[in-house]
Amino acid sequence: MTTAERRNAPITSFTPPDRILMGPGPSQVHPRVTAASARPTIGHLDPEFVRMMDELKELLRQAFRTRNDVTFPLPGPGSMGMEACFVNLVEPGDTVVVCRNGAFGGRMKENVERAGGKAVLVDDDWGKPVDVAKVEAALKSAGTVKALAFVHAETSTGALSDAAALCALAKKYGTLSIVDAVTSLGGVPVEVDGWGADAVYSGTQKCLSCPPGLSPVTFSEAALAAVAKRKTPVQSWLLDLNLILSYWRGTGGARSYHHTAPVNALYSLHESLVMLFEEGLENSWARHRRLHDKLVVGLKGIGLELLVEPAHRLPQLNTVKVPAGIDEGKVRRVLLDRYGIEIGAGLGALAGKVWRIGLMGQSCSERHVTLCVTALGEAIKS
Amino acid sequence: MTTAERRNAPITSFTPPDRILMGPGPSQVHPRVTAASARPTIGHLDPEFVRMMDELKELLRQAFRTRNDVTFPLPGPGSMGMEACFVNLVEPGDTVVVCRNGAFGGRMKENVERAGGKAVLVDDDWGKPVDVAKVEAALKSAGTVKALAFVHAETSTGALSDAAALCALAKKYGTLSIVDAVTSLGGVPVEVDGWGADAVYSGTQKCLSCPPGLSPVTFSEAALAAVAKRKTPVQSWLLDLNLILSYWRGTGGARSYHHTAPVNALYSLHESLVMLFEEGLENSWARHRRLHDKLVVGLKGIGLELLVEPAHRLPQLNTVKVPAGIDEGKVRRVLLDRYGIEIGAGLGALAGKVWRIGLMGQSCSERHVTLCVTALGEAIKS
Repeated sequence: MTTAERRNAPITSFTPPDRILMGPGPSQVHPRVTAASARPTIGHLDPEFVRMMDELKELLRQAFRTRNDVTFPLPGPGSMGMEACFVNLVEPGDTVVVCRNGAFGGRMKENVERAGGKAVLVDDDWGKPVDVAKVEAALKSAGTVKALAFVHAETSTGALSDAAALCALAKKYGTLSIVDAVTSLGGVPVEVDGWGADAVYSGTQKCLSCPPGLSPVTFSEAALAAVAKRKTPVQSWLLDLNLILSYWRGTGGARSYHHTAPVNALYSLHESLVMLFEEGLENSWARHRRLHDKLVVGLKGIGLELLVEPAHRLPQLNTVKVPAGIDEGKVRRVLLDRYGIEIGAGLGALAGKVWRIGLMGQSCSERHVTLCVTALGEAIKS
Repeated sequence: MTTAERRNAPITSFTPPDRILMGPGPSQVHPRVTAASARPTIGHLDPEFVRMMDELKELLRQAFRTRNDVTFPLPGPGSMGMEACFVNLVEPGDTVVVCRNGAFGGRMKENVERAGGKAVLVDDDWGKPVDVAKVEAALKSAGTVKALAFVHAETSTGALSDAAALCALAKKYGTLSIVDAVTSLGGVPVEVDGWGADAVYSGTQKCLSCPPGLSPVTFSEAALAAVAKRKTPVQSWLLDLNLILSYWRGTGGARSYHHTAPVNALYSLHESLVMLFEEGLENSWARHRRLHDKLVVGLKGIGLELLVEPAHRLPQLNTVKVPAGIDEGKVRRVLLDRYGIEIGAGLGALAGKVWRIGLMGQSCSERHVTLCVTALGEAIKS
């Protein structure tokens, strides 16, 4: 069909092409998880659905390694989780120390400012972890600080920061911690209670290998106390924790309507978490580490280097330097057209300079690593 | 299993019970639509996915009866669509006339106030349509008004308001119109261009018969001009139209990343819209009207009356008065346990006083109406 013919043809069912997803997310989704989303829709207040919600909360607690009562998936993308943390915890005039070592730290700054807060930035180069000493200096000099916010696993750069040290600093200086664990959850250790983190959000389309569209969050008692003590209403009705919890926290008949839960998407998340614990959380971390090592060896074999220093590399998100003289977009198109393999482009400051190869969840397998390295080598040559 | 045994057992895959959904939403989902959500996840920037997004926008334009360029599904529940309209159009200090004749008008007031605006309320009894004359009086006396906001189809009461007249009033008084079409889209005429409506939001889990979790929205050029002229940034990063449109409006390579689209949920919406146009939009409206009439006759036969006057009844959402001496919750439990039929309880002011029977989308069929009436009659007797 020509473009004009297509425009006039009636729109029919969509059949997605066969892809292998090795970009920065979504990751490959197991057929068990997509099949779960195809189960019959039931009511969002159905007693059986409510039972599944309780299971989901428990599964997420285990994934986050927390006993936080308030642990549940928000009905939107990871950026909804980010916004929920900031609009609930930040009031107009509050100061938040924001660590910015990639694109998502920049979003945190936007979130603080749109909630009426003042962001004190601690900048590090893209590809470096957050510098803990610089953060301490900022906390010392910033006066009263409402929260310290940082990205655990920067999807835009592939750098892993020291969440334990940063959360400990927050505690030392009497401030709350807000942690972006979108790309880390399920792929590297996330220890919400071990770190003493206060507000943590994640996404489903990374190492949980679930379709995108939900944002698991967890809040400590200290975070909830801060929300309860607010002098101003939360600026978002949709994300007001007080309202959302009447639906997610209520028990049985006391559960009240706030929004209509994305029923089928929650089936998928439930199934992906069941699969995560069938494998075992520590086994999942080990698999990500092992196949990352294999990927690095393979990339070295075709002359490619990673952006991030070995000590701070995220196993699940690898930023690979584009060799001089290579059109990175053309290589990605060859991979997509010839192999059906999707890898990611660089974002922001790294656009045109790196590829991002995701080994997240189901994408992280022996066959995917081997195929990706071989195909990438061929695509660069061609 | 006892509760204690269940608590200690590992959590396994969830299998939903077999239900017939005749509440206020979600409605029954056709197997074609759930099957669509089980198709393989692909990247949210994949060229084939981008082509599907373009089709989705066109399908939604046809459903909303508009040529608005900015017509797309937001990645969250209907309340996200509501919030997106208010936070983009309302600036601190703006006055908004809000029509409140049910629960969702009350939410609109909350949204206006949390965006820093002043809500001038036009109240009507629950179960009545919005009184157009009272709205005109409010517009005359309220000074400069940024927007007139109303609910076309009140899901909490089953009343249909005169959207054409209300949008015409907005035009006459030089103000924007914000229309809640969550329950109306697909079930009764929604004529965005015919009305001259400026910002309209809907949901997927009502007459589109798609799982919950997306909120189709459409914005007129006048609405977009108002967003462009804002003096203050939109308070929500996630819902800032300027940012979202860089992803949904961009063409091909110019499309930039904002959030990760809920890929599989969008497959479902695409399929449900394809099915809607296979039937024909007018045919869908006629089916809802015809089977509503059948339901009313059936309910009369078992001695039940509707809350709303015939002229203002929503065919797809029927509020049925609970007869004196009947425990409405018990009746719903009998329906659910014996028949697997879900009908809805009353909300807010109508709690305990009505049932809400939804005939939305796939729930609106001869067999469902007949079964529901017979089962309800038996449940009341027992």
